Amino acid sequence: MNTFGTLFRLTTFGESHGPALGSVIDGCPAGVPLETARIQAALDRRRPGQSTITTARSEPDQVEILSGVFEGKTLGTPIAAIVRNTNQRSGDYDKLKAEDRPGHADAVWRERFKHRDHRGGGRTSGRETLCRVIGGTIAEAYLERQFPKVSTVAWVSQVGDLVSAVPELGLTRAQVDEHPTRCPDPVVREEMSRRILVAKEAGDSLGGSIDVRVEGLPVGLGEPIFGKIKALIAQALGSVGAVTGVVWGPPDLLERIAQPGLQFHARKDTYGGIQGGLTNGEPMFLRVYFKPPATLADHAKGGRHDPCIMPRAVPVLEAMVSLVLADLALQFNAWPHST
Amino acid sequence: MNTFGTLFRLTTFGESHGPALGSVIDGCPAGVPLETARIQAALDRRRPGQSTITTARSEPDQVEILSGVFEGKTLGTPIAAIVRNTNQRSGDYDKLKAEDRPGHADAVWRERFKHRDHRGGGRTSGRETLCRVIGGTIAEAYLERQFPKVSTVAWVSQVGDLVSAVPELGLTRAQVDEHPTRCPDPVVREEMSRRILVAKEAGDSLGGSIDVRVEGLPVGLGEPIFGKIKALIAQALGSVGAVTGVVWGPPDLLERIAQPGLQFHARKDTYGGIQGGLTNGEPMFLRVYFKPPATLADHAKGGRHDPCIMPRAVPVLEAMVSLVLADLALQFNAWPHST
Amino acid sequence: MNTFGTLFRLTTFGESHGPALGSVIDGCPAGVPLETARIQAALDRRRPGQSTITTARSEPDQVEILSGVFEGKTLGTPIAAIVRNTNQRSGDYDKLKAEDRPGHADAVWRERFKHRDHRGGGRTSGRETLCRVIGGTIAEAYLERQFPKVSTVAWVSQVGDLVSAVPELGLTRAQVDEHPTRCPDPVVREEMSRRILVAKEAGDSLGGSIDVRVEGLPVGLGEPIFGKIKALIAQALGSVGAVTGVVWGPPDLLERIAQPGLQFHARKDTYGGIQGGLTNGEPMFLRVYFKPPATLADHAKGGRHDPCIMPRAVPVLEAMVSLVLADLALQFNAWPHST
Amino acid sequence: MNTFGTLFRLTTFGESHGPALGSVIDGCPAGVPLETARIQAALDRRRPGQSTITTARSEPDQVEILSGVFEGKTLGTPIAAIVRNTNQRSGDYDKLKAEDRPGHADAVWRERFKHRDHRGGGRTSGRETLCRVIGGTIAEAYLERQFPKVSTVAWVSQVGDLVSAVPELGLTRAQVDEHPTRCPDPVVREEMSRRILVAKEAGDSLGGSIDVRVEGLPVGLGEPIFGKIKALIAQALGSVGAVTGVVWGPPDLLERIAQPGLQFHARKDTYGGIQGGLTNGEPMFLRVYFKPPATLADHAKGGRHDPCIMPRAVPVLEAMVSLVLADLALQFNAWPHST
Repeated sequence: MNTFGTLFRLTTFGESHGPALGSVIDGCPAGVPLETARIQAALDRRRPGQSTITTARSEPDQVEILSGVFEGKTLGTPIAAIVRNTNQRSGDYDKLKAEDRPGHADAVWRERFKHRDHRGGGRTSGRETLCRVIGGTIAEAYLERQFPKVSTVAWVSQVGDLVSAVPELGLTRAQVDEHPTRCPDPVVREEMSRRILVAKEAGDSLGGSIDVRVEGLPVGLGEPIFGKIKALIAQALGSVGAVTGVVWGPPDLLERIAQPGLQFHARKDTYGGIQGGLTNGEPMFLRVYFKPPATLADHAKGGRHDPCIMPRAVPVLEAMVSLVLADLALQFNAWPHST
Repeated sequence: MNTFGTLFRLTTFGESHGPALGSVIDGCPAGVPLETARIQAALDRRRPGQSTITTARSEPDQVEILSGVFEGKTLGTPIAAIVRNTNQRSGDYDKLKAEDRPGHADAVWRERFKHRDHRGGGRTSGRETLCRVIGGTIAEAYLERQFPKVSTVAWVSQVGDLVSAVPELGLTRAQVDEHPTRCPDPVVREEMSRRILVAKEAGDSLGGSIDVRVEGLPVGLGEPIFGKIKALIAQALGSVGAVTGVVWGPPDLLERIAQPGLQFHARKDTYGGIQGGLTNGEPMFLRVYFKPPATLADHAKGGRHDPCIMPRAVPVLEAMVSLVLADLALQFNAWPHST
Repeated sequence: MNTFGTLFRLTTFGESHGPALGSVIDGCPAGVPLETARIQAALDRRRPGQSTITTARSEPDQVEILSGVFEGKTLGTPIAAIVRNTNQRSGDYDKLKAEDRPGHADAVWRERFKHRDHRGGGRTSGRETLCRVIGGTIAEAYLERQFPKVSTVAWVSQVGDLVSAVPELGLTRAQVDEHPTRCPDPVVREEMSRRILVAKEAGDSLGGSIDVRVEGLPVGLGEPIFGKIKALIAQALGSVGAVTGVVWGPPDLLERIAQPGLQFHARKDTYGGIQGGLTNGEPMFLRVYFKPPATLADHAKGGRHDPCIMPRAVPVLEAMVSLVLADLALQFNAWPHST
Repeated sequence: MNTFGTLFRLTTFGESHGPALGSVIDGCPAGVPLETARIQAALDRRRPGQSTITTARSEPDQVEILSGVFEGKTLGTPIAAIVRNTNQRSGDYDKLKAEDRPGHADAVWRERFKHRDHRGGGRTSGRETLCRVIGGTIAEAYLERQFPKVSTVAWVSQVGDLVSAVPELGLTRAQVDEHPTRCPDPVVREEMSRRILVAKEAGDSLGGSIDVRVEGLPVGLGEPIFGKIKALIAQALGSVGAVTGVVWGPPDLLERIAQPGLQFHARKDTYGGIQGGLTNGEPMFLRVYFKPPATLADHAKGGRHDPCIMPRAVPVLEAMVSLVLADLALQFNAWPHST
């Protein structure tokens, strides 16, 4: 199941060490302004080698649009975009061919599919997430037309046991990108950086959490029962490899649910922007937990090591949320309101 | 979107105060033993009025199978089962007709659909979950044949700020049902009961968490990328009204992710039975967070009040997990392994 | 796969001799006027025993709406409707239990599903089509609101080797129903009647064709490539048991395609209302071929015999076409046009 | 809707004059032998310029596999394959930019999508069918493993008013390819060729029919109700642009249905290999009607003209049938049989 969405559909393909990875986006309406440069910029936020605190691999991740766009606008036809794998040092991985990497899904995949693409983890590689960033960027291009006020911004809110303060509304992606940790809290982010470098040095790794906030949403986005926005977002975020938990609501929600209901329901922000499975017009808030990555140094000496994937996962989560929003926006159009 | 699943598909229908609610299960293989009594027993675990700590409504929730079963076995055709609404005291709700209930999704639903079924919340009512229990029970009947060792057991692990100890492996549903809280921890459950009764008296309510554990799983259940078992389970659980968070992993996972990776990955149970999006053969562990219910006493005087829905949500979560497992079991069959 | 449609979805259930058959329609917008009497009237056009030329079985086929409708309007929630089987003379069929009925799918179904519901053919029975009529009627109720000019009318155009003239535009269902053959051609229909009665007497049966015409369609209904209106209609009609062929276009299309292109394309009605997979604003025309039914008298003595099912299949084909149109109408809404 | 299939899914993309066309095949099991050369050979059967009787355009249609195949075997991951458009003489089409081509879907597409990709018809171009040939070839590679005896062979059975005799069972694709018309009847094919050349000269075009026969099928392929093999095949074939009719059954079926049932059902080949919506183990037979192409000479002088597309459509229909069979084969695996 490499397709996500009902009306705005993303299909992804590509192994981390095959010829190319790519995405097909089907269902994007015609006439949406879309430049290759926009997708490229989004991929550049995800790619490795952006700073000293991520992996040293520096894949250029050059995107090429193959279809669905003409003279800077979408045609309403499927948009295909690919990224060639240029940095296929599969020699690095050859030594791993025979052995399973601990913490990796290698053993379970081989049990299931009776083969293992030893070339860098195949589809289980985090590299697959670039396909989602392509899809999410196109989703955002479309959303801008239908709901111009919507903005989705994610940031790193926890690294190891260091926790960020909650930023004010109105935070921008540019502000998040100002620091390589993608944590907007000036108080803790320096220490986060330092810890990441220490972990890198030690062949260790760090988990934590990313917060996602969507401002400017209309009321009523979501579909009944199994199409509730929180169900779809949970699927979207749960499909990202290292994610181990999702909470729909403000950062202190897990403490708040220990409160009695009268206290809990006294504040409207308690719902994280979702009621009855639909958006309620307030900012939507999600907290997404990450386990520390499993690619540890002794095994990754040949392979390349990313001690803390969360800074690079920020655009991936934004992409997944935008894909859900675009899909629900089209469904919102589909069902005409009674009078 | 009132259908869940790809190959084992549940479609639910029915308003809480209309003539009936029901389910259609499409994709259940032929020849699976299935008695009405089994579904009835499952519904009895969910229905209100089971004990003093839940709502006083005592709906009999009598199930009738309309199709798909013949002489105690499934036919391979769609299984339809319905429950008539006999206790439609809609007069109770008439007084609510004009006003929105605070904390309820009434306002957002009316904004979206330009109408509101004032008769007890319509589809947003928790009563809808009985349809899921029907579906989940059939899913379990099928799973027993394909993976006889699989057992899914959920229990209440937190009420307000009271937290249960983690029970040993091998816990049964019968053991969970021994106490009205459905908490297996003899130390805290009496206090949980007491708190729930106090909340009921005060017109207040309590949230917390439910843990779900699946033992006896084979290796390799799950599909790549968007069909990862954790993505599908997140959608399944996120579709339940009061659920506000899902964590895939052991009860202390949110503390563990603050640990460095070398420490985190040292224990195999850290993965909660899921690696690379597939089951790894270990017990699967989920923690599901609930907010306190919004039906508060002053508004619910006419309507009826359930101060803590979690004891009754236990079979609903088990049902949702079983639906995912049955769907993935069929997909497991679909793709033949290479040799 | 007992569900049809992407956004306007029909799920059907029920064996011909089980407790009940029924339909769940998911995706019908809220606020559409819908009375039980309208569905009942549609079922009455399909039910057996309407005239001397069909089977003598006289099932009342009383429909009951279980959900999704309140005070005469749809709620936007799934609409479930059932028909109880009251005329279950399964004793009639008991004698057939051990033997396969020639021309019936019994053997292939048993080979596939390792069982056979001997009670009247189970789901392969033509009785299953009443579920489609329920769905199609709801589709039409919705279409009336979105495209008030659309009208779908089918009629019997061939019985054995007797062929009807093509009726003028504007033909109504009431006019079609004036004669038990549902053939609007006064010249041939008396002879058709006579032939059907002769076949009935002789334990023989007759095939032929039904024509379907949709007037009042907007331009542009249909989706690219695999969602072309002709692809979806072909699936819809091909799912009806006795249908053996579908031609999109006017009654003489199979002769016309022998003409050179310059001649063929000189007349706009040559396209049957479909170009590039989308409606072109002209009347849509379909010819649907039926094989003679396989339930022959010697075997059906106990079971009951319908020598020519086409008069009763007329509302079924109308229903299937309306389901496709409603689904495409919602998709038409979904994708906003560029400016 | 640019995706076809439930478990074996083809997604196609690409405009006829954009950078590339391509396909993503999701759901092909792992370990299936697949060489680029096999796909290339299939594309070469479809490409223009194969003989004097088709269009003079000679696109090389070089396929490149981007993912899903490693060391000559499928990985179980999505298989992406693309064909670059090298022969983009869009200047030819510039003169058509302002005017709609008669018989073309240009007007209806512009009405629907408010734009028209004047570069050769965009997605409505027959060039899109190369994506289906890619998908169908992979479907066949998989089918060979699961049902090694299955062979799907199509041929041109009618050109204008010239009708071919029905070839013996066991006909091969190589035999069909021996003549540029792809008609296996040595008596009529020379005259067919001659007529096509005359039409080409005159700026005229010819329609007719293609027959498809599948030998070696197992019993029981197909799913109940809306997944009947004839429903899915009808959708698959109805999605091909120039197809105007589909008949499931032997070449003389439309005459046979005028016969009384006792006569009709006396021969088992009357069912065309399908009973109750499932394969019955006999050869499956389909007749597919084509209208004459609309690209007429005066308009196509700049664009390039194919007077009779059927010889090139033969591999496209084979591909569509194979895609349905592969999808049903996986579904056949999914539902375990009862005992």
